[in-house]
Amino acid sequence: MIIAEVSIIPIGTGTPSVSRYVAGAIEALAKQKKVKYQMTAMGTILEGELKDVLDAVTRMHESVFDRGAERVVTKLTIDDRRDKNLTIDYKVQSVMNKLG
Amino acid sequence: MIIAEVSIIPIGTGTPSVSRYVAGAIEALAKQKKVKYQMTAMGTILEGELKDVLDAVTRMHESVFDRGAERVVTKLTIDDRRDKNLTIDYKVQSVMNKLG
Amino acid sequence: MIIAEVSIIPIGTGTPSVSRYVAGAIEALAKQKKVKYQMTAMGTILEGELKDVLDAVTRMHESVFDRGAERVVTKLTIDDRRDKNLTIDYKVQSVMNKLG
Amino acid sequence: MIIAEVSIIPIGTGTPSVSRYVAGAIEALAKQKKVKYQMTAMGTILEGELKDVLDAVTRMHESVFDRGAERVVTKLTIDDRRDKNLTIDYKVQSVMNKLG
Repeated sequence: MIIAEVSIIPIGTGTPSVSRYVAGAIEALAKQKKVKYQMTAMGTILEGELKDVLDAVTRMHESVFDRGAERVVTKLTIDDRRDKNLTIDYKVQSVMNKLG
Repeated sequence: MIIAEVSIIPIGTGTPSVSRYVAGAIEALAKQKKVKYQMTAMGTILEGELKDVLDAVTRMHESVFDRGAERVVTKLTIDDRRDKNLTIDYKVQSVMNKLG
Repeated sequence: MIIAEVSIIPIGTGTPSVSRYVAGAIEALAKQKKVKYQMTAMGTILEGELKDVLDAVTRMHESVFDRGAERVVTKLTIDDRRDKNLTIDYKVQSVMNKLG
Repeated sequence: MIIAEVSIIPIGTGTPSVSRYVAGAIEALAKQKKVKYQMTAMGTILEGELKDVLDAVTRMHESVFDRGAERVVTKLTIDDRRDKNLTIDYKVQSVMNKLG
């Protein structure tokens, strides 16, 4: 299990508002069942097996072209820890526990 | 006002657990009052003026050395939109509104 | 064809020097023949088909665990433009041509 | 001294080609003298003091609005190592030395 974050930016869309494309990517993500996700103001956090995450990100990336974009920049950060089972909740909680 | 995301990784700490360093960076962030923030499993989302955000990120970055790290990799993404006032809530809401 | 950039950070290695792990990832990349690459001081730039790039990045990521790391953070940026065939050289040249 | 990488993406420009904006950012960078830089196909690598790098990145970011963009996403990665003096050349060379 890995935790990842993906952010997707369409380029050359003619308007600074890109939420329509981001919504399409979230819908593509929601169609698969293997990767859990959580939207934030700066991207989408993913939890699952590495290959399932890469597959989900590929679908999200492709969905932006389906909505008409000609160029897409997709950023993915993978956090893979093998001595312990990472989850979204565990990561946030372990920082919270150490706050003074 | 910009929305940003920062993630901070200490290198060479001897253990794969880095939540102690992340907690120190959050405490450094909490001490200043100009930048609003929200923790996620993959980073911290910031809302404020660009110069205040850069100042807060510098303090977070420095705090990791204060806790003993010898090398720190800090990633910052700045989303700056000038035709409209971006907020953390607005960004999430505008995608939610477009989901099918 | 896409252009991408990958950077790989082992966490908890006990020393701030991580070039041994980066070298292992470059060797894993050199073993495959479908993706062209170029090392920089901040990552490795990749040129190839999206699925071949994801496969190469997976091998690079895995190689860091093979060398003993317990946690690895891998960042990937994909630049995919479909109205034109992007190459590493083309991207640099098109900026150079516009410099005053 | 830190090594950093910056990439700047204008959003909503109406065309997938953004090299005109990147060239403007490079020109803004070239006007200051404290930060060394190197262009790549995926961003610009910077070498200098942290505060000078942040100042240079702010100027680059602002230059994209000066050329007419309404929204700009700027990504910055800072690699700061305090047990040793990092340079662009040193980082590449230390990986090259370890390749089999």
